[in-house]
Amino acid sequence: MTVEPFREPNPALLADLTTLLGERVSTAAAVREQHGRDESYHQPFPPDVVVFPESTEEVAEVVRICAAHGAPIIPFGTGTSLEGHVAALSGGVCIDLMRLDKVLAVNVDDMDVTVQAGVTRKRLNDYIRDTGLFFPIDPGADASLGGMAATRASGTNAVRYGTMRENVLALTVVLADGRVIRTSRRARKSSAGYDLTRLFVGSEGTLGVITEVTLRLYGIPEAISSAVCPFPSLEDAVNTVIATIQMGVPVARIELLDDVTMSAVNRYAKFDYPERPTLFFEFHGTDKGVAEQAELVQHIAADFGGTEFLWATRPEDRSRLWQARHDALYASLALRPGAKAWTTDVCVPISRLTECISETKRDVAALPFPSAMVGHVGDGNFHTVLLIDPENAAEIELAKDIGDRIVERALAMDGTCSGEHGVGYGKMDFLPLEHGEAAIDVMRAVKKALDPDNLMNPGKMVRV
Amino acid sequence: MTVEPFREPNPALLADLTTLLGERVSTAAAVREQHGRDESYHQPFPPDVVVFPESTEEVAEVVRICAAHGAPIIPFGTGTSLEGHVAALSGGVCIDLMRLDKVLAVNVDDMDVTVQAGVTRKRLNDYIRDTGLFFPIDPGADASLGGMAATRASGTNAVRYGTMRENVLALTVVLADGRVIRTSRRARKSSAGYDLTRLFVGSEGTLGVITEVTLRLYGIPEAISSAVCPFPSLEDAVNTVIATIQMGVPVARIELLDDVTMSAVNRYAKFDYPERPTLFFEFHGTDKGVAEQAELVQHIAADFGGTEFLWATRPEDRSRLWQARHDALYASLALRPGAKAWTTDVCVPISRLTECISETKRDVAALPFPSAMVGHVGDGNFHTVLLIDPENAAEIELAKDIGDRIVERALAMDGTCSGEHGVGYGKMDFLPLEHGEAAIDVMRAVKKALDPDNLMNPGKMVRV
Repeated sequence: MTVEPFREPNPALLADLTTLLGERVSTAAAVREQHGRDESYHQPFPPDVVVFPESTEEVAEVVRICAAHGAPIIPFGTGTSLEGHVAALSGGVCIDLMRLDKVLAVNVDDMDVTVQAGVTRKRLNDYIRDTGLFFPIDPGADASLGGMAATRASGTNAVRYGTMRENVLALTVVLADGRVIRTSRRARKSSAGYDLTRLFVGSEGTLGVITEVTLRLYGIPEAISSAVCPFPSLEDAVNTVIATIQMGVPVARIELLDDVTMSAVNRYAKFDYPERPTLFFEFHGTDKGVAEQAELVQHIAADFGGTEFLWATRPEDRSRLWQARHDALYASLALRPGAKAWTTDVCVPISRLTECISETKRDVAALPFPSAMVGHVGDGNFHTVLLIDPENAAEIELAKDIGDRIVERALAMDGTCSGEHGVGYGKMDFLPLEHGEAAIDVMRAVKKALDPDNLMNPGKMVRV
Repeated sequence: MTVEPFREPNPALLADLTTLLGERVSTAAAVREQHGRDESYHQPFPPDVVVFPESTEEVAEVVRICAAHGAPIIPFGTGTSLEGHVAALSGGVCIDLMRLDKVLAVNVDDMDVTVQAGVTRKRLNDYIRDTGLFFPIDPGADASLGGMAATRASGTNAVRYGTMRENVLALTVVLADGRVIRTSRRARKSSAGYDLTRLFVGSEGTLGVITEVTLRLYGIPEAISSAVCPFPSLEDAVNTVIATIQMGVPVARIELLDDVTMSAVNRYAKFDYPERPTLFFEFHGTDKGVAEQAELVQHIAADFGGTEFLWATRPEDRSRLWQARHDALYASLALRPGAKAWTTDVCVPISRLTECISETKRDVAALPFPSAMVGHVGDGNFHTVLLIDPENAAEIELAKDIGDRIVERALAMDGTCSGEHGVGYGKMDFLPLEHGEAAIDVMRAVKKALDPDNLMNPGKMVRV
């Protein structure tokens, strides 16, 4: 994997940034290198300079300086994105937002919170623990909430609580000209104007820089119960999920691990699970409610050959039970030491999920490297983890071909090329296939209207 | 109330439309008059011509003809909007979408449905009854689903099921140049591109014409239970709501009627309710779940003096119990024969709701005409119904002043000027107060980018 050589930043730009931020401006090679890469296989591109503002006003001033010098602007949180979102494809200024780290307002009665963009989801949940409230969205990584909003993140409990789309109430955004807007009030609903909140959620820094996020919170459930159950086949597992959702069981998480992944976690963490397609469940509610959900789901699963339930209710037991799910990525990587994960991320209508996964498993069975599969199956979303040698061009080519085939299959099933990992520069070329040229023209028109000089994270999302 | 005189449509435009649609083009005075008015107090403006296309392709062709002649385009559903959305302020062509009346695809396993824009919510629910699924959003009127999407409608059970924002999965939209886009695939979630679905939901025909809507459906609950309970004060009622939601009780509806409205419904329908602030509840779930919700809510209400619960579970009994809520508008109108309802629609964070309602009730107590209040209090949304003489200019002026005060109060409490009635031309001037000029500039930039000639429902939402 190549890394682009460093460029020298424009001295006048650097001078203006230094006047504003002093030592919170860096051109150190290590800092630039770190800020040009995410956790994916995509080629990193270091920015020319990295700045560390501490307030919305400082971000706005940075944007104004960049606009004056025609320098690209790339927002950066924890660097845990997966489609090359933070790569400085044309150089420019990376705005590291992690020093915007304040929880600004917790409104317990309204069950909402306003944070600066650099607060991570775990820090938020630690901060509000005593209120009896929590923020549910869990993409795996302890990502910044600004980054999660910018990429429309979701994860394991979107099936119950929704994605960032449903859980962001309002944003503070610095526009391309340095002006600052608030996209919405704190009211739970509104029909007053275009939905700017949803326009910026998932816009990946291409329309503006998110500096504050107002989020919905939820009451910590009185009871939480977890379960694991293996199934005779993928189809049986997925049919259990479909029936569970149709029955209206408000399951909080419902995750599928395939036989390969179960075998991998057994080896990785000395588990002794049956090496069959397995569902991981989590139920939230009252004591009685959780008991009823558990009973219903066992009843449904039994119809599909799922009878070997393991249950846990105490926090430490639940953690142990879910450990296999949390270990899935590292366990899969351990299947092939030195391998890198090339992760696909399609999402289809749940009625097509069995077919989509089964055909995909037939595809990957023919590959010369191992692959594992995990799914947020309640949403129809699954990841194929291709374990490639990152130095082997032929394997990269094969992974790319398989990734393309998986996307084409999902699109043919009325699905999406990206369930939760976003577009960045990695998925950009799939968007016209998914949405059609006219819809891409609409996206491009919006981009041009809000960022006429194409300085906001250029080269991502849509080609201008 | 004045009505604008009819204009003669451009003969060349009329000829082109007639070539396309034959007798499905009307310039009859009664048809034009009906299509220029909604159910509000806002002045109607008849369009020059009304067309009745029967497919997306015909709508696209109509839009292309209008674009060629520079004629404004106003989409029309059931005409039940409340902020002058359908008024042809600059004349032009009204597109009546009610002949796009097909249910196109019911996907039971995926719990979604695709309908043409003219299908109403009641027709949809009749159509899908045998599937065990239903569509919950209920704005009161039997509105078209295209219109509900276009205005981001909600209503009594948004507290549990969300608004049209959360329940539209995808839209088919005719753009200003006549091209047709699909905003999203049917996958439950996606992070692939700007959220065009949410951009068009609530855009009120100003960015394009919605011709098809894909909606989330829900399982018809195994059990439904309804209850009514009076409270000593507004504050007690609202505090009961706050505690109910914080406890995570998944109440399906929770509606507040004030003392005036309770008195009005008693008179109107010979009820015998205590004339005090009263909450109307509906619970959805399993038998056990509904019983537990009911128990929890009674426990909470008792802490706030709410002890006189009336319960109903059989459908006819539930209908009877909720009749008072459904009658609220007509019962209020009957307080003053000949009066017209001037309805406000603010929504505030729920922690401010008691204060907002109490101050509003003090305001209206001084008025020379009666007013009633109903609230979707789970969302922080309430309506003050001012019963004015529509011929009395002084009363209209007073109502306008009070409406302005209510909006200003809601905005000062971080609320919105429009919880669910939209903007149209009635609320347009409040948007800069709510969102700030820079955010309005963003909306205007989006409008100009998608509708450069300002032909899509001009004069609504934002001034161009």
